[in-house]
Amino acid sequence: MPANSDFLYHQIADQIEKLILDSVYKLGDKIPSVRQMSSERGISPSSVFQAYYHLEAKGLIEARPKSGYYVSYNPRKTPALPRMGAPIARGRFVSVEDMISEIYHDLADPHVTRFSLAAPSIELLPAAKLNKAMMQAMRSHPFSGLSYEDTHGNKALRKQLARLAINWKGAFSEDEIIVTAGCMEALNLCLRAVTQPGDLVAIECPTYFGIFQAIQNLGLRAIAVPTNPLTGVDLSAFEKILEKQPVKACLFVPNFNNPLGSCMPDENKEKLVKMLAKRGIPLIEDDIYGDLYFGKKRPLTCKSFDKDGMVLYCSSLSKSLAPGYRIGWCIPGKFYDQINRLKMVWTVTGTTITQAAVAIFLENGRYEHHLRQFRKVLHTQSMRYAQEIAAVFPPGIRISRPDGGFVFWIELPQGIDAFQLYQDAMKYGISIAPGQIFSADAHYSHYIRLGFGQTFTPQIKDSLMKLGKLVINTLKSS
Amino acid sequence: MPANSDFLYHQIADQIEKLILDSVYKLGDKIPSVRQMSSERGISPSSVFQAYYHLEAKGLIEARPKSGYYVSYNPRKTPALPRMGAPIARGRFVSVEDMISEIYHDLADPHVTRFSLAAPSIELLPAAKLNKAMMQAMRSHPFSGLSYEDTHGNKALRKQLARLAINWKGAFSEDEIIVTAGCMEALNLCLRAVTQPGDLVAIECPTYFGIFQAIQNLGLRAIAVPTNPLTGVDLSAFEKILEKQPVKACLFVPNFNNPLGSCMPDENKEKLVKMLAKRGIPLIEDDIYGDLYFGKKRPLTCKSFDKDGMVLYCSSLSKSLAPGYRIGWCIPGKFYDQINRLKMVWTVTGTTITQAAVAIFLENGRYEHHLRQFRKVLHTQSMRYAQEIAAVFPPGIRISRPDGGFVFWIELPQGIDAFQLYQDAMKYGISIAPGQIFSADAHYSHYIRLGFGQTFTPQIKDSLMKLGKLVINTLKSS
Repeated sequence: MPANSDFLYHQIADQIEKLILDSVYKLGDKIPSVRQMSSERGISPSSVFQAYYHLEAKGLIEARPKSGYYVSYNPRKTPALPRMGAPIARGRFVSVEDMISEIYHDLADPHVTRFSLAAPSIELLPAAKLNKAMMQAMRSHPFSGLSYEDTHGNKALRKQLARLAINWKGAFSEDEIIVTAGCMEALNLCLRAVTQPGDLVAIECPTYFGIFQAIQNLGLRAIAVPTNPLTGVDLSAFEKILEKQPVKACLFVPNFNNPLGSCMPDENKEKLVKMLAKRGIPLIEDDIYGDLYFGKKRPLTCKSFDKDGMVLYCSSLSKSLAPGYRIGWCIPGKFYDQINRLKMVWTVTGTTITQAAVAIFLENGRYEHHLRQFRKVLHTQSMRYAQEIAAVFPPGIRISRPDGGFVFWIELPQGIDAFQLYQDAMKYGISIAPGQIFSADAHYSHYIRLGFGQTFTPQIKDSLMKLGKLVINTLKSS
Repeated sequence: MPANSDFLYHQIADQIEKLILDSVYKLGDKIPSVRQMSSERGISPSSVFQAYYHLEAKGLIEARPKSGYYVSYNPRKTPALPRMGAPIARGRFVSVEDMISEIYHDLADPHVTRFSLAAPSIELLPAAKLNKAMMQAMRSHPFSGLSYEDTHGNKALRKQLARLAINWKGAFSEDEIIVTAGCMEALNLCLRAVTQPGDLVAIECPTYFGIFQAIQNLGLRAIAVPTNPLTGVDLSAFEKILEKQPVKACLFVPNFNNPLGSCMPDENKEKLVKMLAKRGIPLIEDDIYGDLYFGKKRPLTCKSFDKDGMVLYCSSLSKSLAPGYRIGWCIPGKFYDQINRLKMVWTVTGTTITQAAVAIFLENGRYEHHLRQFRKVLHTQSMRYAQEIAAVFPPGIRISRPDGGFVFWIELPQGIDAFQLYQDAMKYGISIAPGQIFSADAHYSHYIRLGFGQTFTPQIKDSLMKLGKLVINTLKSS
């Protein structure tokens, strides 16, 4: 019975992982052999093999020929967490805008190791099955998707997106959803719908540069809320801000925040929603990473607790299925009409054929299937990358511990200028995201964001080593 | 020799068309028989047949069995041109925004005769060949177009778009072009790049509602420039405005303006560009209809005369190739960097696979081929529609004479409220665009815009008749 054996294999893998992380089994220890484990537990050797294979992929154990499996992971070597707060910016000769422009000028260049992206390896995405869905869409869609789509998006797709919301206890009809050109368009439309130029918008700090750029671009002002690297927005600090400042809207990334990787506990989400509803302040929730959790359960969303239609939920498939399809959406609650009108003025409507193809892909249940595999792979990659970083970077660095998403937030020693490091690394064809670009004022000058979305290969290992050496050499020469 | 016979057939068709329009041949006159014409001119009967077939398709002549060809068109019956200026708005119980929302709520509804669209029948577009290009793109593009495209767009596509500019004497490299999500995104980005909230932007009046909505949405103020229904912006009137008002930018549609259908003479374009360059005012040029000319030559653009990089050229393939692909572009001159940065903040990048497919389609020369056919069909449809409207609408209406594009601008008798007419017509499943939505203040309350992009069928004829009757009955009962 595959379900049962699947269950057993997970049980064994989880148990041994815990023993290693708790240092019961230490680096170099031999773990029970497959035969031993199989007879002790009364389960098939193939299930045990599967569990060990899984642990090996995560970099926790290694097989030694003719000897057995040994622990290859040292939890003590995991660096500390990065610190909160925003150290003062230094040496601002280059504007944040110019930095971003330089770093992301050529998103499609294949010759660069792109640690700077918060995006998956394209090899991890189901290209063949999406192509099949695209062909089906061209055959079945009237006029092959040449005609304008409705402004609010393909109906079959909206139905499927409504079904996705069930995973976080959302109950919506397709008529409450508006399809957008990726998550950024959704965030822009929501910001525009709930504010007027000059208004104050609360955001996390550090945060994804697209967010404060959108705020600036709309003539709004941002106020940063203290944020914990593990649990996100500090609610009591936020409450104090709300008492003093005329905050008109919030834009937060509660699940696997970019770049911190923090995940706001569900009870905090509920508190936050109540806190804001009481004051009539709309919350724009960016949940683009919500489906990419490494744990057992999908975290809920703020929208899960929204009773008044004051949460504008935004997400997209760019991080989990098809970046190039540009399919995002929002569930804007009581702001539905405004968003729909704004969408018409900005881009009129979205691409017809990609929406139809994704609707077919989701209808066939292929997305859930893909996500299950994809999450495992990302979790494994995160551990591989973390170990490698701990091994090759200088001691004393601090690193985030994301339970989902694609990125590490790394605090380097104070002597490092992250943008200079970016420029030096580019000479080796390695692109990183310097901390400066995650706040409008170029703070975080000795932090970097490092994406682990690319498959861990010898080339990645080599690039991490080069990067580590660069940091070490920079410290020596300073 | 096909080229030669093609030339002769056009020569005959043009000559007879002119004779009919000049009333040398009058309604009911017999024109020379095919045999007569063939022997007089010394050309093949099949060339003459082709010419007559062409004139018949345009509704200028008709074949009578066993008798010959007779003139079926009366140029005297063509209604006068609509008048300039903006009659006062009346009865504004519904806001312009609400009207637009109501009319364009469901762009994809196939059960409505959509005279309200300025768009082609999808049957007129090369769906099969585009599908082929799409398949080729999925096969040849790395990762089937799942990956992010560069922010400024697919390189092969930009090369092809640069080649299209040669038709209006533009000489650009692909690095001067930015691909956008349709023309509306291009216009929005350009407006944002060259203005600050509160700035004054000169526009035509009436104009496409998307334009003044974009202006309002960005917190800008619009100033309307007097516009001639044949030749566009009145340059001397505009000069006077520039002397008095702090105009920060202009947004004009010089070629086949929507809804007027006017086309600014090329010498006026040159004057306009000089006038603005002298004052350092950027001109945003919407050339979305420029390729859809009915005459012998493509009209030039303002960008053709731009020496200082102060013209921001915008266009798209939504009107001529694939509305649902959402592919627009701009050639923003000296504002390139700003536009590229804004694009990244708004939608990050465009859809990858549709760009790749269109690049392939254009590379194969299929676009020029399609356009040649498409223009002929549109020209024919415009004449068919015009005659039918003249026949079934009450006398005294006035109608524009577009030499390109998709739309008529019709001035109805003063007793008509166009939005009420829209609502009445919708009871018969007929959608029109009431004049009110073409100015921010709901002027033009007895004008309508009527699109002739849909193939002229008995159903279209029937819908036009119903619409004409509605107008007549409304006048009777008022």
